[in-house]
Amino acid sequence: MDSSQEDRPGMGISAALAYLSKSPGKRLRPQLLIAAARAIGNARGESLAAAPAEAVELIHTYSLIHDDLPAMDDDDMRRGRPTLHVAFDEATAILVGDGLQAKAFELIASEEQLTAQQRVDLVACLARASGFEGMVGGQGMDIEATQQTLTVEQLKNIHALKTGALITAALVMGGIVGQASPDQKATLKAVGDKIGLAFQIIDDVIDVRSDSTTLGKTAGKDAAAGKSTYVALMGLEAAETAALDLYEESVALIKNWGVEADVLRELLARMVKRDR
Amino acid sequence: MDSSQEDRPGMGISAALAYLSKSPGKRLRPQLLIAAARAIGNARGESLAAAPAEAVELIHTYSLIHDDLPAMDDDDMRRGRPTLHVAFDEATAILVGDGLQAKAFELIASEEQLTAQQRVDLVACLARASGFEGMVGGQGMDIEATQQTLTVEQLKNIHALKTGALITAALVMGGIVGQASPDQKATLKAVGDKIGLAFQIIDDVIDVRSDSTTLGKTAGKDAAAGKSTYVALMGLEAAETAALDLYEESVALIKNWGVEADVLRELLARMVKRDR
Repeated sequence: MDSSQEDRPGMGISAALAYLSKSPGKRLRPQLLIAAARAIGNARGESLAAAPAEAVELIHTYSLIHDDLPAMDDDDMRRGRPTLHVAFDEATAILVGDGLQAKAFELIASEEQLTAQQRVDLVACLARASGFEGMVGGQGMDIEATQQTLTVEQLKNIHALKTGALITAALVMGGIVGQASPDQKATLKAVGDKIGLAFQIIDDVIDVRSDSTTLGKTAGKDAAAGKSTYVALMGLEAAETAALDLYEESVALIKNWGVEADVLRELLARMVKRDR
Repeated sequence: MDSSQEDRPGMGISAALAYLSKSPGKRLRPQLLIAAARAIGNARGESLAAAPAEAVELIHTYSLIHDDLPAMDDDDMRRGRPTLHVAFDEATAILVGDGLQAKAFELIASEEQLTAQQRVDLVACLARASGFEGMVGGQGMDIEATQQTLTVEQLKNIHALKTGALITAALVMGGIVGQASPDQKATLKAVGDKIGLAFQIIDDVIDVRSDSTTLGKTAGKDAAAGKSTYVALMGLEAAETAALDLYEESVALIKNWGVEADVLRELLARMVKRDR
């Protein structure tokens, strides 16, 4: 624990956090959260959303770090750079993921601009979406389903938990920040469920069409790893059509919302009309 | 994802959770939390403490699962049985740990018997103690310090984070549940800092004196793994004396507290006077 240790490259949690901060990713989930808060039309919603938005991104980041581990999806590349366990080591990657999860809940609980009730609701929503009944449960199912041929319904169920739950949580959390009515929250949840699935289907489409350079992660990997994909099960064209249909349905759910929802609408569009 | 899969031994998060539930451990931290709530003398404190007590145990359990992983301390035995990654696999152990952490915060946030402010304070306290400035940070320092000779002060600093922070958090969380005054919370924190260190020193003492059968985990492992221990740095007798002194100091801090604190006093005693 001499001071020189902190300077040693490749060692230590602090160095790993610095490494992560240099490849921030697209920050889709925080953008969704902030856009949902704004869509509710609560004038202060957007400025109050910073801490919960950061929290949902921390959960997403920790999940990528743990999913990339050799014992899980064993990915070497992420966001165009070596994954954390490659750049550092597995112990650091496990610990950084664990610490980021704790930090997410600490951030929300400590945000004194929000009422205690809002913070409690946000913690409960994020914890549920990221735990056994959400993201973690979905990743477990995903790993177990490797080398099995799934039906489209089974694949949807896995993705609804693995990636959909956190996307939906981001939207509902925006609603909590903006003090949405129960009806508005239900709508945000329905939007999240549809766009989350569309997003995942488009991911598969892009995975087939891209190479690793433009993707920033290993391309075609899911199919190669024996994982079911929407493209494999439905065909490329039908998969893309299904995603666009889901997107149209999600936008229709908020068609009566005002101009405050325009940023949200734009984000939903970007989720399915991504650069290939 | 066919139904037969759930019956296949060694597979799945649910089976791993069932496996864990069959070796519950000593549940020291929940006992501390409940005893602290009772010590404050708030009549309802004890019954309100169940969810936060479970939450702190979930955090402790997840940390053991992740610390036992091959990339971390690489332990095969825990509580007299194979560790989770040995009984199942590494992916399951990582995911179960991740899910238990989320569950801990969900449990607190969802406990409607507590006020929203109490729940927020509990989440913040537990998240801080288990994150980068607490348990996770300490485990990172511990792994980096392997094969180095530390001073007693350096070893104390590591353990204050790695194991002390969560023990202190359990006591302070009991205070939050019992609606302790700021003074009472400060006392509980001081008690936790002292007894947490004493507990760790005694752990080293027991590790030297025991064999694996009575310990339920691999004995003498820390020293063999090149980790500094209090016994190695201070000698067996001096280490034991230091632990008992810390215990006496912790009890002295609550000497003016009433009979409501007797369960807490008994627990503190058991933490340093454990069966060898």
